[in-house]
Amino acid sequence: MDNRPIGVFDSGLGGLTVIRELEHVLPHENLIYFGDTGRVPYGTKGNDTIMKYAEQIVRFLRGFDVKAILIACGTVSSVAFDVVSALAEVPVYGVVEPAARSAVEKSSQGDILILGTSATVRSGSYEKAIKRLNPDAVVRSGACPLFVPLVENDHFSKDDVLADMVAHEYLDTFLNRGVDTVILGCTHYPILRPLIAGIMGESVALVDAGSEMADTAAVSLEVRGLLSDRKDIGKQNFYVSDYSEDFTRLAGVLLEHSLAGYVEKTDIEKY
Amino acid sequence: MDNRPIGVFDSGLGGLTVIRELEHVLPHENLIYFGDTGRVPYGTKGNDTIMKYAEQIVRFLRGFDVKAILIACGTVSSVAFDVVSALAEVPVYGVVEPAARSAVEKSSQGDILILGTSATVRSGSYEKAIKRLNPDAVVRSGACPLFVPLVENDHFSKDDVLADMVAHEYLDTFLNRGVDTVILGCTHYPILRPLIAGIMGESVALVDAGSEMADTAAVSLEVRGLLSDRKDIGKQNFYVSDYSEDFTRLAGVLLEHSLAGYVEKTDIEKY
Repeated sequence: MDNRPIGVFDSGLGGLTVIRELEHVLPHENLIYFGDTGRVPYGTKGNDTIMKYAEQIVRFLRGFDVKAILIACGTVSSVAFDVVSALAEVPVYGVVEPAARSAVEKSSQGDILILGTSATVRSGSYEKAIKRLNPDAVVRSGACPLFVPLVENDHFSKDDVLADMVAHEYLDTFLNRGVDTVILGCTHYPILRPLIAGIMGESVALVDAGSEMADTAAVSLEVRGLLSDRKDIGKQNFYVSDYSEDFTRLAGVLLEHSLAGYVEKTDIEKY
Repeated sequence: MDNRPIGVFDSGLGGLTVIRELEHVLPHENLIYFGDTGRVPYGTKGNDTIMKYAEQIVRFLRGFDVKAILIACGTVSSVAFDVVSALAEVPVYGVVEPAARSAVEKSSQGDILILGTSATVRSGSYEKAIKRLNPDAVVRSGACPLFVPLVENDHFSKDDVLADMVAHEYLDTFLNRGVDTVILGCTHYPILRPLIAGIMGESVALVDAGSEMADTAAVSLEVRGLLSDRKDIGKQNFYVSDYSEDFTRLAGVLLEHSLAGYVEKTDIEKY
């Protein structure tokens, strides 16, 4: 039993899709969320910059005496998982392994498409994890560098013309080529799920990497005896490196309910 | 006469369009360029974050004993000009006033469209500057938050499908409504000029804000006796906060020649 909070972080708003999932699978846990809205996006940056930003965030989260850290960001999970693990001194969960496992289980023909940021695709992280589980899998990948800017700028609804155009540009090349499973390898992408599902077609299974990580973390924390014994709903506090007028509204949209905790701006560069 | 270098900065690569112009109007000057590639884009961030980033850059540039600072960024010029001026202790030039003056001169009917980032449009900076010069001007503005991510991700050529789609989404609403002059209010936008010109039509004048600033700075530095007396071509050195593999190639494309100086990564958060 451990009543300390769980730390969750992302480059921006996308990790809120993980918070939403945690509300279902770990409703009694206190959550500390950090979104690096002042430096988003990560996925088009170099690996050393991504690692440095991740280290600052881990130092920030450790100040809350968190009992575990969830990397709710496909880019950091792909590029800086080891760096985060080494610094965290508590259990760390990333999105890559859980998503790869789920995709291999769901895939009927072993033909899996990974959608991620440029840095994630460049790292080959998902591909390596899938090949370890199924060496015969056909693994394709598509970098979608504009999906994060789109989502962070409120272009994600089903009838958003821009989001639709960009999604077609990225996905059309993979249609009718045998893909049976798609990994949404960045935590911003589930927000575009209706769009992506509509383009890929009903027969293609979609794997939400952040959601898979939340499920994995819930089981693992229980096995380790690290869950809280509270009976009431856990508290949530949110920290961001840039606070724009839109944050609270957009966060509400992504969480599918209004923000239950306070939002505070923090100077992440000091960590 | 002053042989110290001129400092030029932008949120990323866009300011290189200003370097290109300075090579024409001030060929004998040494230039120090800083691009905040680790934190780009600025234009979707809050004003206090933009001001903080601008202050760090000014402190960094002052370390080179620069004789003037050119804010080669529409967002910083709009939101943080005063902050930069107060800290710089040398002459500071921004893009807003020179672009507004040029637009008022070029506009036949006084119907001017400003294209800029969300922060620039929100600030109303260009509109205020135009109205001071021509109170009767009709000023329209369109925020184009995805133009910077597009350019920074190499989507800017005339036949780039994504750039074309996004440009139409932003511009179509302003067609056939009387606009006679368009201010490219962000230094990334001249890179999209062929696209924007093609959509707006031949009868519409385009004003390149960064280029106007370079011309203004050249005249002003001469009047102040601050030009160098060198006869050879000035040196250029480039600093970035994130160094991706693509930087040198993309910089070459934007400058229209290969990089003439070295590129160094710097930790801007320390300033």
